[in-house]
Amino acid sequence: MSCWYNISAPEDDIVVSTRIRLARNLSGIPFPSRMNSEQLEQLKSKVKMAVSESNTPFAKTLKYIDMNAVPEVEINAMVERHVISPEFAAKSEGRAIILSDDESISIMIGEEDHLRIQVILGGFQLEKAYDIAERLDTLLYDRLHFAFDDELGFLTECPTNLGTGLRASVMLHLPVCESSGEIAPLSENISKIGFTVRGMYGEGSRSAASLYQISNQITLGISEKNAVDNLKVITAQLIEKERGLRNNLERISVEDTVFRALGTVKSARKISGKEMMNLISRIKLGTSMGIINSDKNPFGILIENQPFMIMRRYGEMPPEERDIKRAQTLREEFKDSSL
Amino acid sequence: MSCWYNISAPEDDIVVSTRIRLARNLSGIPFPSRMNSEQLEQLKSKVKMAVSESNTPFAKTLKYIDMNAVPEVEINAMVERHVISPEFAAKSEGRAIILSDDESISIMIGEEDHLRIQVILGGFQLEKAYDIAERLDTLLYDRLHFAFDDELGFLTECPTNLGTGLRASVMLHLPVCESSGEIAPLSENISKIGFTVRGMYGEGSRSAASLYQISNQITLGISEKNAVDNLKVITAQLIEKERGLRNNLERISVEDTVFRALGTVKSARKISGKEMMNLISRIKLGTSMGIINSDKNPFGILIENQPFMIMRRYGEMPPEERDIKRAQTLREEFKDSSL
Repeated sequence: MSCWYNISAPEDDIVVSTRIRLARNLSGIPFPSRMNSEQLEQLKSKVKMAVSESNTPFAKTLKYIDMNAVPEVEINAMVERHVISPEFAAKSEGRAIILSDDESISIMIGEEDHLRIQVILGGFQLEKAYDIAERLDTLLYDRLHFAFDDELGFLTECPTNLGTGLRASVMLHLPVCESSGEIAPLSENISKIGFTVRGMYGEGSRSAASLYQISNQITLGISEKNAVDNLKVITAQLIEKERGLRNNLERISVEDTVFRALGTVKSARKISGKEMMNLISRIKLGTSMGIINSDKNPFGILIENQPFMIMRRYGEMPPEERDIKRAQTLREEFKDSSL
Repeated sequence: MSCWYNISAPEDDIVVSTRIRLARNLSGIPFPSRMNSEQLEQLKSKVKMAVSESNTPFAKTLKYIDMNAVPEVEINAMVERHVISPEFAAKSEGRAIILSDDESISIMIGEEDHLRIQVILGGFQLEKAYDIAERLDTLLYDRLHFAFDDELGFLTECPTNLGTGLRASVMLHLPVCESSGEIAPLSENISKIGFTVRGMYGEGSRSAASLYQISNQITLGISEKNAVDNLKVITAQLIEKERGLRNNLERISVEDTVFRALGTVKSARKISGKEMMNLISRIKLGTSMGIINSDKNPFGILIENQPFMIMRRYGEMPPEERDIKRAQTLREEFKDSSL
């Protein structure tokens, strides 16, 4: 089964992925931070039951996974695939998740809140992702009793999630906005209207792969639909901005950048995780601009060559050996990409 | 006609070229710095005559070139091909040279001395180069009257050339000596025995292409044969040193270095002169170590893609356009080199 990140999707020249996350808690059980093991078991079995009782074809794609049965390498690989959060991975003992076949739907049970419902899709698909999240929310709501207050909305452990409990985000590839120095001013403008920009997969202010996540900050006093609609407008503007800047690039310079990156992945014998970010970013710019052909989604390849994703395939190994395996895999993946 | 730098030669895994230079002056004519134009004409016609009068097949490969008839771009390209010195190029008006078909023999007329006889061959061919230089010296000596003093030997404008007037040098490719930090101690030891090491084509202490020229410092109180023999011994030691270090390299690391360079020349759209040095050096290491196949001599390609060598083929152009032409040429040259 192909994962969401290996399927081509709308506007995926710039939008890598769309994510909707809902924070939900069951009434009558304390928040995870104060829950005892008995209450955790009770929570898991209620959720498991709620999903399995639903006879919709939709619910049938979902499986319940006991995290105790998942090896450490795979737990970390799930973080790299965005299936679970790093925080959940760190305290996954006794926890469980619900996961769809293509991994586009995941529900973490016992993260910061009882339930963290996540829908992640490739490309720019806010409405579709929101629609799926709502169906999941309804499916569970019908069978579980969510903690809800008429004034505050959904109750959550952290007050920043109170209200809708919704976090909508898009992951954008903005290499030319970045190189033109546009990220800082864009970020400032976006924060004024209640959204946040942060680099992804990168340390410091610059994102290693020119990936930037835009997400809503506000969950209280705004409807779910409004939050999603606002993000949609902002994203559309950013797409136009990045495309416009790309069209103004000097062709020979961008070709040089792109072809060098492709030449490197086709020939290098060792590639660190950090270098891969940079190379994949440039190759993705090349495929998006029609400079090079590749039937693969470069960002899918990026996910599949994160450290634990490599060790999931080949077994545990030190970083230097991973760099060699990564270079091997990248050579293989891009061997038919034409210069 | 193929030039000396495009023919494979002994020990050319490490020795790029061998050069013998003889400084000679005619008695009865002042040194070039004090010579008037009439005396210069007299000098040129004497030398031209001496060469054309010789009926040896050897002398027939030599042609007399009036530098006034040579376009500026070609004069600079001659410097890049090591046919003439930069100093000679700067004051070439009214000057002439004698040049062989394959450009391995050149005689500058009216450089610092009346005659600078140069023989340059690919690889490690000190005896052969010296032998050719001697034949030229004899050929000219028979017809011209060289300034010679029984005690001082051949008289030259600069006292550092007095005596034999001989400068013997080899150009070595020492990338692994360099990366192992061996150049400074080697250089110190070599200078103690009257030889000099200097980086070639490079600014600062590091040579851009890991090329180092070893040459004799002393011309007085030592026979020509001794100078050549000593250089031969030193060079043989340096060859062994570099080969030994190469054999101790971690294979995957050197492959990574070499293949990345090849991947870059096969894909880049702009390559500066400085970057080319670095790339060619790594490719040459790869061909010498049998890591990559190439029927071309990488250092020949390096010479042919110097700025004026490019403009000699395509006409004058600004540096940015040369970088594009250079990248095009390198892609073409290495397109069949296997990874």
